[in-house]
Formats: sequence, structure tokens, C-alpha cells
Amino acid sequence: MIDKVIAHIEKNYEPYLERLNAFLRIPCISTDPAAKAAMRDGADWVLRFFHDAGIDAGIHKTDGHPAVIADTGPADAAGPTILVYGHYDVQPVGDPKLWESGAFDPKVRQGRLYARGSADDKGQVLTHMLAAEAWKKIAGKLPIRVKFLIEGEEEIGSPHLGALIEKERERLACDYVCLSDTAKFSAEIPAITYGTRGMLYKEIVYTGARNDLHSGTFGGTFPNPATELIGLVGKMKDADGRATIPGFYDDVDAPTAKELESLNSLPFDEEAYRESVGAGGLAGEKGHSTMERRWLRPTLDVNGLLSGFTGEGAMTIIPSRAMAKVSMRLVPHQDPAKISAAFDRFVAEHTPAGIQHEIKEFTSCAAYVCPLENPGLQKAAAAVEAGFGVKPAFIREGGSLPILPLFKKTLGAESIMMGFCLATCNAHGPNEFMVLDDFKAGIRTAAHLIAKMPG
Amino acid sequence: MIDKVIAHIEKNYEPYLERLNAFLRIPCISTDPAAKAAMRDGADWVLRFFHDAGIDAGIHKTDGHPAVIADTGPADAAGPTILVYGHYDVQPVGDPKLWESGAFDPKVRQGRLYARGSADDKGQVLTHMLAAEAWKKIAGKLPIRVKFLIEGEEEIGSPHLGALIEKERERLACDYVCLSDTAKFSAEIPAITYGTRGMLYKEIVYTGARNDLHSGTFGGTFPNPATELIGLVGKMKDADGRATIPGFYDDVDAPTAKELESLNSLPFDEEAYRESVGAGGLAGEKGHSTMERRWLRPTLDVNGLLSGFTGEGAMTIIPSRAMAKVSMRLVPHQDPAKISAAFDRFVAEHTPAGIQHEIKEFTSCAAYVCPLENPGLQKAAAAVEAGFGVKPAFIREGGSLPILPLFKKTLGAESIMMGFCLATCNAHGPNEFMVLDDFKAGIRTAAHLIAKMPG
Repeated sequence: MIDKVIAHIEKNYEPYLERLNAFLRIPCISTDPAAKAAMRDGADWVLRFFHDAGIDAGIHKTDGHPAVIADTGPADAAGPTILVYGHYDVQPVGDPKLWESGAFDPKVRQGRLYARGSADDKGQVLTHMLAAEAWKKIAGKLPIRVKFLIEGEEEIGSPHLGALIEKERERLACDYVCLSDTAKFSAEIPAITYGTRGMLYKEIVYTGARNDLHSGTFGGTFPNPATELIGLVGKMKDADGRATIPGFYDDVDAPTAKELESLNSLPFDEEAYRESVGAGGLAGEKGHSTMERRWLRPTLDVNGLLSGFTGEGAMTIIPSRAMAKVSMRLVPHQDPAKISAAFDRFVAEHTPAGIQHEIKEFTSCAAYVCPLENPGLQKAAAAVEAGFGVKPAFIREGGSLPILPLFKKTLGAESIMMGFCLATCNAHGPNEFMVLDDFKAGIRTAAHLIAKMPG
Repeated sequence: MIDKVIAHIEKNYEPYLERLNAFLRIPCISTDPAAKAAMRDGADWVLRFFHDAGIDAGIHKTDGHPAVIADTGPADAAGPTILVYGHYDVQPVGDPKLWESGAFDPKVRQGRLYARGSADDKGQVLTHMLAAEAWKKIAGKLPIRVKFLIEGEEEIGSPHLGALIEKERERLACDYVCLSDTAKFSAEIPAITYGTRGMLYKEIVYTGARNDLHSGTFGGTFPNPATELIGLVGKMKDADGRATIPGFYDDVDAPTAKELESLNSLPFDEEAYRESVGAGGLAGEKGHSTMERRWLRPTLDVNGLLSGFTGEGAMTIIPSRAMAKVSMRLVPHQDPAKISAAFDRFVAEHTPAGIQHEIKEFTSCAAYVCPLENPGLQKAAAAVEAGFGVKPAFIREGGSLPILPLFKKTLGAESIMMGFCLATCNAHGPNEFMVLDDFKAGIRTAAHLIAKMPG
């Protein structure tokens, strides 16, 4: 049956592209209050897609933008249920002058489809929708049950997704969550992403005197919040690039031998990696390779600093206030709450007398990892290989996806990330694109996934 | 003769105040391009004052605002020549709504004269002009030669003063420079300020990758300029609050026993000092009292910090750039050029691989101190005691006056600072004021100085 489905898909690339273009023309910018009607149009477009394909679907209101939930219904064969998660909302356009063609006027140039959302995430989530439609059309019924959760607030941090999943946990019940919102390993090699890092993001504010002080009149007699904050943050890392917060590494998982082997088998050119961002060199925690530091090791980084006079020239003040933003990328099984408490204790213990300190916390989410030997993950890899004709790399992602621990906790399901776009696709910048061949291979992959999951 | 001069002065307080008011009504804001005519009016007012008093004077053009130089001519008695230095330009008004009466509409309230320039510096420099006028009128001739250099660019950093002094070094030749542009020790106790700190002001910029990097995707693999700059600046001070730049303390003068005795005899309430700025505590270099740290010890302070994301909330970036402004207050006989080179070497040696660094220097000036036993300083103190009826405190100033080392170098003259205003007179803020009794005592003091200098 899969051969017939694939044959059907291969005959329909052109209408598929036209339908993607129609989807891309709706300017679903979730952060833009003026785009409210477009957001409704986007949800309606997704809903109609499923109805036209004969798949049950409904719009679910949230306190923000609505989500669409669809369900192909119970399958005959015994097999897992997968929940495809994606989003129909997109990032803002930014400066329109930087776009070579309109952000909402999809155009193909040199095998790439340029439009906002082509990669993130309309073009990617549509591959799964089209695969389900093709199965339904050719086979009448899918070999496994496939559900869809397509939300409209991913680009603004999914503020209402947790409540929706909680409320609809039975409707969303599944064995695996499948996401196509990550990237291939390279242009040539597709990827299965099996883990993300967590994150803890803090802001520390030090306050000294009531106002900025004249550095001549008062210099040398009062604690300087900028100097002291530098002292504090400087103590947070040692000479080997390791965080010094007590207990920081206590619960860090050592990678399995299999994982290290997989990691070391990936083609990785350090010099090309360095050159790609124009950095003067590589650096990080001693005793770990660049690939390990990028995906498997936690970090502690300064993300922002502000104090005193920052204009051109000299202003002779002892600042009254100094601020540092410090974030940590966490790995399994570091507990964000435990690290957060240890961080706050560290700050309190190292803040000198005469300085008031305040700590804000902006983000706290755990890392996620799906064991490499998980059967669903292996079947997904086989589907990618069938769809792309190339064995996928098993990779991790250094960034964070708070929804993954959420799916695990609420639905008890592992997540499989199969990304079809390029890391360099300008997902949040001007001239976002999707390689057309990857769009086609993605549809084939999604169809194979449905075939390979049972058993 | 001094008794007659003082009697004449005491009879003329009212017309003196009216003349000060006329001077204050001219809005000589040197930084304001629209105030060019007012600046000329200010210089003309000073010139006319001297001509009316029968004192030789001329306007000296510079590449900026003009200066007035006056000269009472050779004296009969053997005695030193003094050069009174002051300025007729003033700070901008700031927010006019914060002024209880107009900045250029002088008003007396509760014994204080409120106007921009009343303390800084028109009200103070006029005391010396009026004293010279009184001597000329009563005695026909002054017992010593008094010269005046009254410039119009002090509030913008005296950019053309050095060139003028160089050009007119013979006309300005003197044994002492006398300035009244500092403050009394307290409302009750006048002061002779016999030293200022120098200053070296630097900006360090660290650059890493070409652009800010995603802290998830790249975190842990490249050097973070913010983290590294914190590491560098954190190394510049040790746990005892001492600068670690090699050689920093090599040339620092130990205070003389006499100086320490004088310092310790001053009434100083640490708790009131702390409370006056609302700081949580006092701090600084270990092993030195607050008064020593304030005036006699060098400092190293962070004046500004900027890197990465400084807005509200979380932005997950590894900044591409980090900036710190670091300044040092220097004491005799620290050499700014030597410290500057040591500072730059320290930065270069401690900057890690993969980070580019750049250093800018904005200010470099040496400290100044007039030995306590200097006879001119002691005569000035006697003049203050005669004028105010209270022995002055010998104090230093934590801030910097680049003109003092300039006078020393170009004219070979020591500087005597006799301040008549209060430290709390809002010199650069709204509602600047001069206590009228201090204005009167200032004129008497200036007259006594002329009497006491010979011999």
C-alpha cells in the first residue's frame, strides 16, 4: 500500500506546492495585534484542509489564538498512536526591504521556496497533513491512528498550550509526539533530533547608593555595584569553564557509549563551524569536545550587562545600579528548580555587605531526551531514510523546547523530532526559505512513518 | 590699610550684591551654541569691571569662547604675584520646572542667593575681583601684584586653556595660582583644599563572534565576550579592594605625619556620610580609613557596563560584544602614562584566545598636591581665618582638576584652592545657590589674602 501512497504523492507535487503557497499567503503573525483576522484565517485554512481530506477536526479556542486538533480515528492494525505537533503562526516580517520577494508572496528561486513560514513551520507541518490525506485517499484508512495539534502561539512562547493539553489530554492521548520544526544535520544529511537542552534564565540586580555618585568625591569609600556584580558573576565559572554553583553537575547524565559513538561518527568540521559565525576561536568546558559541549553539556552564560554610563566618552560616576542576565542551558537530569535554588543561594552568599540584590527568573524548563534505543525513534529514522534516500544523523539540539517535557509529563509520550529544513533557512530572519526537494522528501517521509509505525 | 579696605567692603555689601546679580543675569552657558552672544556679553562684563576699577585688562580670543586676562601691575613691596583663576561660563539650566525661581533671575531666600553661577563660579570669582577693586580704591595701589585669568570654557573641559596659557605664559607669570571654585568643609568650617586626585579613564571593548549567537545552538562552544570581560575586570581588584595592575601602587606617596594628623583632626561622621548618599555601607581598600580612601588613596572603579540584551525579560544570546568603562583616580606621584601602559599590558595579557580587545582612553591627568608647609598656603589659611572668623580645615578633593598640574608645569606655580560655597550648593543642578554671608566673607578673605601675601 505504501508504494501506491508514494506514487500518489509523487504525482501531486505541483498541487501540493500550490496549496502550501495558499497557506503561506495568510500573514499569521501571532505577536501582531493587527493580525487577529489573519490568525483566524490560518486556523480556518487548517480546519478546512482536514475536513476536505475527510479527517475529523475542530478549532479549540484558548485565551489567545486558537489551535486546531484533528484525528484520523481508530486504526485496524495494532500500533502506536502518533500526535503530530506543529504551528500555523509565524514570526514577524522585520524590515520588508531586506526581503528579495514579499514575505507573504511565495516565490521559487533556484529550487528554494521563499516566504515567511515556508520552513517554520507551515511548510514542515503540511508534509504530515498531506501524508495523512494521501493515505486516507489511497487506502481509505490509515494503518495507525494519527492526531494533529496545530497551534497558533508557538512564536510567542505557547502561553496557552499547557492549559489546552491539560484540558484535552484524553483527546490528545498518544504514544508518540512527532514534530517537524527542527533542521537537517546538513544540506546532504537529514536528522532525527532526540534531545534538547533545558534552560534557566535569571537576572541579577545590584543596588548601592540612592543615585549615581561622583567617582572623585566618593570613589574609594562606598561599594560599587558594577565592580561587585562583576566579582559575583566572575565567581560563577572557574578557569576550566565549569560552573561553580554548588551541585550544578550533580545530576548531569553521562552520555551512553552508543550516544558518544553516534556523536563521534558525525562529520563535523570545527574550523568551518568557527568560521560560520566569525568567532576568533572555540572555547568552553575543559575535557569535552565541541560537539559534546554543544549538545550534551550544560552551560552558564552572561546574556546581558548594564550599568552606569554607556555612552561615548567619559562620565565619572560610581553607578547606583548594575544588572546582569545569566542563563544556564541544562541537560538531563538537571532539575531547573534545584539549580535555581542553588543559584539564588550562591548569589546571596557572595553578595557583599552594603549591596542590595534582587533576582528575577524569566525561564525555567527541563531538558528532554528520548533514549536512542526507543523503537519509535528507530522507526522514524527508517522513515527518514526511505523518504530522503539517506540515513539520518541522530543529533541533539542545544536550544530548548519547553513543550517536550510538557508532552512527556501530561501525555506520557516521547517526542520524535524529524526536521526537514536547513539550519541556515533564515527561520526568524528575512528571506526564509524551504528547499523544494526537502518539502517533497518530507511528505514522503511522513507517509513512510505511518507505514512503518505498526508492529 | 587692611582695616580701611575691610571697612569699605563692609559698607558696600548691597551694591556688591546688585553687581553680582547683574553678572548672574547673563546666561553664559558655554555648551549652548545659541548662547554665543551671551558668552560675549559675559566676557565684556568682566572686562568692563576691571576697566571701571582702573585695572588693566583685555579680552583674549581662543578657538572657542574668549578669556579675560587682567593685571593690577607691579607692586611696591616685595611679595609674590598671585594669579586668580576663575570662569564666567556656567552649566546648562536643565529642567527649568525644577527651579523655584528663574536660573538667570537671581533671588534671595533665607540668606541664600539662588541663580545659576551663584556658586560655580561667578559668585566666587567676583569676591577676588571686588577685593582687588576695594584695594585699588582705598590704597591706590595693591601691596602685591594680582593677575586674573577668567575663562569661558571651564564647564566644557577647558579645551583651549592649555594653548592660551602656553601663549601668554609671560603675561600670566606668577608665584601662586588662587582658585575659588571648590567648597567649604562644612557650613560652619571653611577650607583650604591643597590637593586633588588625578584620573585615568579607559574603555575596554571585547568582541567575539560576528553577530550575537543563539545561546542554545552555540552556547558552550565559543568564548562569550561578556563572561570574559567580567573575568578580566574581576581580576583588576583583589579581595582587599586593592588594584592588581602591576606597579599601580609603586609611586603612591605616603601621607606625611602632619597630613595624617590634620586629616584625623577633622570632624567626620561616617554614618552621616553614608546616610547622605543612601548607601548600604562603606567599603574600599583595606587598611585605610574612609577619609584616607576618599582623598589620599587611588581607586579603580567600573563606571559603565554594556553587553548583549538589556531589555525586560529573556533573550537567549551569546553577545558578540561587551564594553566596560574603568577609571582610576590617581594620587601623587602616580604617573598617568605609566599606569596607562601597565593597564593596557594587563588587559592584553589577560584577554583569552578567541577574543579581540580594544582600549580607548578618554582622560589622563595627574594628581596635584601643594605641600602643607608651603608658606603661600599658610598665608591663605590665615586670610580665610581673618575673613570667616574660623580656622579653615586643610582638605583634599577626591575629584580631579587637570588645570592644576598644567599651571604647575607651564607657570611653575603652586595652586591654592579657597572655596567659599557649600558642597551641597547644587553647583550643576537646579536651584544652585550661594550663602550670602559666605559671599561677604569671601570678599573679606580675598582682601586679607592681598594683605597677608607680602613678606
